[in-house]
Amino acid sequence: MSKVRVHNFAVSLDGFGTGEGQTLEAPFGHAGTRLMGWAFGTQTFRGMGVGGPGEGSHGVDEAFASNWADGIGVEIMGRNKFGPQRGPWEDEDWKGWWGDEPVFHTPVIVLTHHPRPSVQMEGGTTFHFLDAGPAAALEQARALANGLDIRIGGGATTVRQFLEADLIDRMHVVLVPIVLGRGERLWDGLEGLEERFDIEATPSPSGVVHLTFTRRS
Amino acid sequence: MSKVRVHNFAVSLDGFGTGEGQTLEAPFGHAGTRLMGWAFGTQTFRGMGVGGPGEGSHGVDEAFASNWADGIGVEIMGRNKFGPQRGPWEDEDWKGWWGDEPVFHTPVIVLTHHPRPSVQMEGGTTFHFLDAGPAAALEQARALANGLDIRIGGGATTVRQFLEADLIDRMHVVLVPIVLGRGERLWDGLEGLEERFDIEATPSPSGVVHLTFTRRS
Repeated sequence: MSKVRVHNFAVSLDGFGTGEGQTLEAPFGHAGTRLMGWAFGTQTFRGMGVGGPGEGSHGVDEAFASNWADGIGVEIMGRNKFGPQRGPWEDEDWKGWWGDEPVFHTPVIVLTHHPRPSVQMEGGTTFHFLDAGPAAALEQARALANGLDIRIGGGATTVRQFLEADLIDRMHVVLVPIVLGRGERLWDGLEGLEERFDIEATPSPSGVVHLTFTRRS
Repeated sequence: MSKVRVHNFAVSLDGFGTGEGQTLEAPFGHAGTRLMGWAFGTQTFRGMGVGGPGEGSHGVDEAFASNWADGIGVEIMGRNKFGPQRGPWEDEDWKGWWGDEPVFHTPVIVLTHHPRPSVQMEGGTTFHFLDAGPAAALEQARALANGLDIRIGGGATTVRQFLEADLIDRMHVVLVPIVLGRGERLWDGLEGLEERFDIEATPSPSGVVHLTFTRRS
C-alpha cells in the first residue's frame, strides 16, 4: 500500500509550524523566512526557484530536502498553505503561491470548507478543493495517486490532524532552533506520539536538526 | 565574572520541562522517567546513585552530563524542584529528594514564597530558602559562590524566569523526542530567544539531542 508522508516540515523549539499573521507577503506570518531558511541553500529548493540563484548545496539539508517528491502521486494541503484568504473565496483568481507552473506536478487536494471548481495549472499540477476530514481526504487522494505515495504538505493544523487520526507513515520534521512564541502549534493534542514512531535525529551544519519519524509496524 | 549556567535540563518536543501531577513518587509528574532517562546510563548519574548499578557510559551523553558540577559554587532551584509540597511548609522535615548527603556539595538557594530556616546537610550542601526574584536571588548566590559559577537547577519555571530576565550565560538543554502534552513549558514568553545565543545541536545514539546555548557577547 502506498505510504502517507510528510517532508521538510519545519517547527520551532516551542513547536510552532508557522507564525502568526499570515498575509500575501508573509506566508509564514511573523516567522518570516526563519522556519524555511535552512532549505533556501539547497539544490532542491534552488531548483524550484526558491532561495536565490546558483546550484545550491548537496549536504545533509539537501539529502533530506530532495526526498520530498520521489514516489509522490498527490499532495494534500490545508487551506492556509494554499493562500492567505479565509472563509468563502472572495478571489477565485488566486491559484496559490507557486505561479503558473507550480512545483508539485501532481494533483493537489486543498482541504477547505468552501469548495470551488478544480484548477488545472501548467506542468501537471491540478488543485482540487475538498471539504473533508483526514480519512475521507486520504481516500480521494489514493484514487488520484496512481498507486504512488501521498504527501501531507502542511500547514501545521493539517499535519496535526493527520497525526491525530494516525494516518502518517513517515514524517520528516526540521527542528529550527528559534523560539517563535506564537503561531500554529504542531504537537498539541499528540501526547505519546513517540510510542507510534521510531525517531532519529540528524543535525546539520546549518544549525537545524532533521528528525525522521518512521511508523512502527 | 562568574557565569550563570544551566545543565542537563531536558525538554520534550512540545517544550515541556516537566509533566503534570508532581508527587513524592513522581518528581516529574506523568513524564515519569522519560525526560531524564538519557542520563541514567551515564557515569555521572550512576556515580550519584541514579539510574542503577555499574560504572555507566562515557559517550556523548556523559560528555554533556559531566559538565554540570565543574566550577559551580552554588545552585539556585525552584521550590518545585526541591519537593512536591506547595504553599506554606506543612512538613519541615522534608529536606529534598536527595537523601542525607545531597549531590550538590555546595550551598543551594531554594526560591520560595515561604522562607524557612536553612538546613545544613552532609557533604557540604546547605539549603537556603529565599523569597526573591531572579536578579536578587543571583546577588545572594554570588555572595555564596566564592567567585565560582552559579547553576540554575530548574525546574522549568525557574529556568524560564532567569531566561526572561536575561541572566543566563550558558545553557545545556536536552531535547527528548517525546510529546508530553501537558506540564510546565520552558519556552513560553521567550520569543526571539535565539537572538541572544549561539546555539549548537549534537545528537546522541540514545536518541536525544543536546542543545547548547552560549550567550553572545
